[in-house]
Amino acid sequence: MPITRTDLAMECFENADGGAIPGTQVSHWESDGIEITEVLVTDNEAAQLLDKPKGTYLTLECPLLLERDPDARLAMATLLAEEIDRILPGGDGDAPVLVVGLGNRSITPDALGPGVVDRTLVTRHMLGAPWAQSGMNSVCAIAPGVLGITGIESMELVEAVVKTIAPRAILCVDSLAARDSRRIGCTIQLTDTGIQPGAGVGNHRRPLTRDSVGVPVISVGMPTVVYAATLARDAFAWLADREGDDEPHEAALADMEKTLLGGEMGEMIVTPREIDAIIQDASGIIASAINRALQPTLSDAEIAAMMN
Amino acid sequence: MPITRTDLAMECFENADGGAIPGTQVSHWESDGIEITEVLVTDNEAAQLLDKPKGTYLTLECPLLLERDPDARLAMATLLAEEIDRILPGGDGDAPVLVVGLGNRSITPDALGPGVVDRTLVTRHMLGAPWAQSGMNSVCAIAPGVLGITGIESMELVEAVVKTIAPRAILCVDSLAARDSRRIGCTIQLTDTGIQPGAGVGNHRRPLTRDSVGVPVISVGMPTVVYAATLARDAFAWLADREGDDEPHEAALADMEKTLLGGEMGEMIVTPREIDAIIQDASGIIASAINRALQPTLSDAEIAAMMN
Amino acid sequence: MPITRTDLAMECFENADGGAIPGTQVSHWESDGIEITEVLVTDNEAAQLLDKPKGTYLTLECPLLLERDPDARLAMATLLAEEIDRILPGGDGDAPVLVVGLGNRSITPDALGPGVVDRTLVTRHMLGAPWAQSGMNSVCAIAPGVLGITGIESMELVEAVVKTIAPRAILCVDSLAARDSRRIGCTIQLTDTGIQPGAGVGNHRRPLTRDSVGVPVISVGMPTVVYAATLARDAFAWLADREGDDEPHEAALADMEKTLLGGEMGEMIVTPREIDAIIQDASGIIASAINRALQPTLSDAEIAAMMN
Amino acid sequence: MPITRTDLAMECFENADGGAIPGTQVSHWESDGIEITEVLVTDNEAAQLLDKPKGTYLTLECPLLLERDPDARLAMATLLAEEIDRILPGGDGDAPVLVVGLGNRSITPDALGPGVVDRTLVTRHMLGAPWAQSGMNSVCAIAPGVLGITGIESMELVEAVVKTIAPRAILCVDSLAARDSRRIGCTIQLTDTGIQPGAGVGNHRRPLTRDSVGVPVISVGMPTVVYAATLARDAFAWLADREGDDEPHEAALADMEKTLLGGEMGEMIVTPREIDAIIQDASGIIASAINRALQPTLSDAEIAAMMN
Repeated sequence: MPITRTDLAMECFENADGGAIPGTQVSHWESDGIEITEVLVTDNEAAQLLDKPKGTYLTLECPLLLERDPDARLAMATLLAEEIDRILPGGDGDAPVLVVGLGNRSITPDALGPGVVDRTLVTRHMLGAPWAQSGMNSVCAIAPGVLGITGIESMELVEAVVKTIAPRAILCVDSLAARDSRRIGCTIQLTDTGIQPGAGVGNHRRPLTRDSVGVPVISVGMPTVVYAATLARDAFAWLADREGDDEPHEAALADMEKTLLGGEMGEMIVTPREIDAIIQDASGIIASAINRALQPTLSDAEIAAMMN
Repeated sequence: MPITRTDLAMECFENADGGAIPGTQVSHWESDGIEITEVLVTDNEAAQLLDKPKGTYLTLECPLLLERDPDARLAMATLLAEEIDRILPGGDGDAPVLVVGLGNRSITPDALGPGVVDRTLVTRHMLGAPWAQSGMNSVCAIAPGVLGITGIESMELVEAVVKTIAPRAILCVDSLAARDSRRIGCTIQLTDTGIQPGAGVGNHRRPLTRDSVGVPVISVGMPTVVYAATLARDAFAWLADREGDDEPHEAALADMEKTLLGGEMGEMIVTPREIDAIIQDASGIIASAINRALQPTLSDAEIAAMMN
Repeated sequence: MPITRTDLAMECFENADGGAIPGTQVSHWESDGIEITEVLVTDNEAAQLLDKPKGTYLTLECPLLLERDPDARLAMATLLAEEIDRILPGGDGDAPVLVVGLGNRSITPDALGPGVVDRTLVTRHMLGAPWAQSGMNSVCAIAPGVLGITGIESMELVEAVVKTIAPRAILCVDSLAARDSRRIGCTIQLTDTGIQPGAGVGNHRRPLTRDSVGVPVISVGMPTVVYAATLARDAFAWLADREGDDEPHEAALADMEKTLLGGEMGEMIVTPREIDAIIQDASGIIASAINRALQPTLSDAEIAAMMN
Repeated sequence: MPITRTDLAMECFENADGGAIPGTQVSHWESDGIEITEVLVTDNEAAQLLDKPKGTYLTLECPLLLERDPDARLAMATLLAEEIDRILPGGDGDAPVLVVGLGNRSITPDALGPGVVDRTLVTRHMLGAPWAQSGMNSVCAIAPGVLGITGIESMELVEAVVKTIAPRAILCVDSLAARDSRRIGCTIQLTDTGIQPGAGVGNHRRPLTRDSVGVPVISVGMPTVVYAATLARDAFAWLADREGDDEPHEAALADMEKTLLGGEMGEMIVTPREIDAIIQDASGIIASAINRALQPTLSDAEIAAMMN
């Protein structure tokens, strides 16, 4: 079974033979045109086998998003808001929630996080104002990869900010790599496990988890790329399977990676031509869900009016 | 022999068995660290076989460009300027040269043309000014965008402009698709055959050639993507070759394209993560070459000072 | 009476003594929180005195736009759509309407036109598609100042396009200069007189009018700047008036313009700090009005779904 | 003497009667086409009178920058690099220098700081690499944005970063307000006093000084705007002076500010139309000076090659 690179927990099961993996629970359901998959990784062996830490992984899929269907966008934002609200630990309301948009604005498929931060209603600096509404929650946001190609790692910067503002929770947004290109732009994963080293399009070097920063870290991600090596490996696996080969051509694969995929190719990404538009749309949907989840007492119109 | 999508004439020969193709001449040489390949397509049968019109195709390759080597950039700009000067028909100097930057600025790998237009020294509107230098040639430039932004096809717009300003020649810049991803960002093709329907990352629907507009059309292009289908096909061909299969798995290929590459996948592109930086660099190199070729009496510093 | 630079017909009356100017009619009314002023210039003497050609000038003012009030934005878009529909000549529906976004995207206060073109639903290229809705009107759009700093004047390019596509009417959008800075960002002028030389933030050199292109030209504009010289002159006039001076300090004014405003200052603009956000908002409102006026059979959701 | 808003220490002397202000020393000289003014504020009374803290203020002026003269740009970058080197305290070389680009990228005249950060050679993350050159100094950079994007004040963020990375010094870059519009885009001020509350186009609310962060803070700024109120006040003062009025029309001024400049006008800025290009140019010049000053062992070509 070729191990291919994916940040989606649900894709880790697709090469399995359909049998259950001990230490995991997978459920599917459907709501308002959105297909939902919940994966629970409950023990350490499963975590190690799947290369995904213990915790809850919720995936929302809606292919209509790729056709820019307005109803699908609204349905996705509504459902995601509910799920964020459900997974985000409550709090006394005085400590802020810190929204962290990971990624680099100048690499299009890695620009989801900064795009969401641009559209997040930030309130921490307004709460003292006389006109501030009483039910408003404190929110601040940071896009550490945008603050500059800084010589300071994104996670180092987030840790510094966490020490300064003492948030009650972190809500991270990141661009992900998938294995199946059909998931690009129409699938959102929500998890309570934070960000792992090596994950995301930007390949983070350090974790951003409850262990690393001391507060709960919820992360929201959308696949925006497939690695070229993943695509080639899957084509091989598919071919081997079709031809009824028992042995998985591992030698051929290794050989191909050295020649065809060697060097630069390893870092090549496969992405739709219209990725700029996909990032823009997805940023709007995720930010809308975050704004609703974090400000339940405000209407959409009030949120829009307060953003500038 | 799998037919894969490439806009580079030199790549059409790479699946051939090394034997010469009648009606073509291929030469290689090296100059200042740059590898040059000249392909002449001299008769109609060869043109049809290669799916490339009769004419001259010059390819300049320099892998050091990907490391942003300043010497390599300068060498490439210098050599390209010389070759543009050689291939561009002379003229009386009063009629302008029209630089056409094809492609769509909001799709990163398709943004080479607009990027070059941004950096081209445009002089047509200054030639009457008292301070205009006497040897200056008339140049104007246009980045027509793509169909769907304007409802006017790029080529329709270019034709309208050609009628209005009556240029002596057109110099087109476009993002190309290659077959080999190692050519992305470090290879420039220069040809006197203009732009063909279906070519370029933007897949132009109409030609831009001497036949279509009545003036010589030189085009400069750089590969910025490989189509995902090309990559998968090449992986198959490579595997078949390695295993000594005689028949080229055509049935398997067709099958795979339907399942694995079906639908959206067909339009998926493979591109380096750092494509934004590559486009920016290449725009600078090509514009610098164009400015030098079109304004031989101006120094680099004078060109820089006149741009704003 | 100091002559100050304004592109708003309504501001030409503000230095007059309240008496009517022969050859003009001015009406005011209010609708849904928007103050409307209609100026009709009906004879040539009035046109020359006011430096505004004969025709209809409609101004919609809504200061709440500056507070990004969602209701105000909706009301403005709705009213503007109705007025565009009223002023735009009908047609057989086959010939397209050409939306022209004047201005330069890289000079923020001049970027209104390109911003509107970005958000305009362009349909000319879709009308033949099987899924095209039957009532859809043909629309194309061009932002000639974005196509490149091209050596081709914007108006020359528009004329070339008009010859090629033969539109039934032109709808022009441009950034304007006002005299009163309080009108920046909250006032929209709609006129059937097209664009005059010297008008707009970009100071067009050639007209775009029914006379120059042979089809009706409606123009929509919003003030985004006040010229610094205008501000200084108004301060002077105000001071003279306050001190009861009879003579208008013309010598002092001329002197000041030479010293204080001399040279660069003449071209200095006064603009709000948040002009980028104002341009973005106004582009959305005007494009929404244009889309509704030009596509009366489509709902807002259908328009949104068709844009990409 | 009307007090007008300026961030340039040298402009504080221009309303004085030419006589020396006790507690200050002003020197002028010229070097390579650049006019240099050094202001030393040496006691607390002078600091209070001028509203500028005690310290050194060096101003480099070169009007040719506005004509984009390549020699002038090079001369300015060279001289500024020398002066930064002179004013920046030396250090053991292990602790990094932190470059802070203040300002908001989406408000053009406030975007100088982020523009410089984009072009600064950041090395802190490379120093451990095997290919890192031995003489390289550690540099990191941050563009903290402004309050309202993040809900975290810029200075709060800088303080958090300072605690984490313990720099040996801070080099701040900011857009300034001038009194004389002719200084926009061609004047650079270098000071060892850091950033004061209320200064800069962004009107910082908290200081960034040696006192506030515990390490030396050098700041580099360029005027990009004049406040509209400043312009009107200066026009008044000029007029009063011309007419030989003894009393400075203070009542008229106060009255005018209430009516003509009331409300929004107070925050209106006067800026050249080509401010986007000015910001781009100035970002390049200042970043080039910073890179040379901080990396004396690297050539320009090596610096260019290491940036990506």
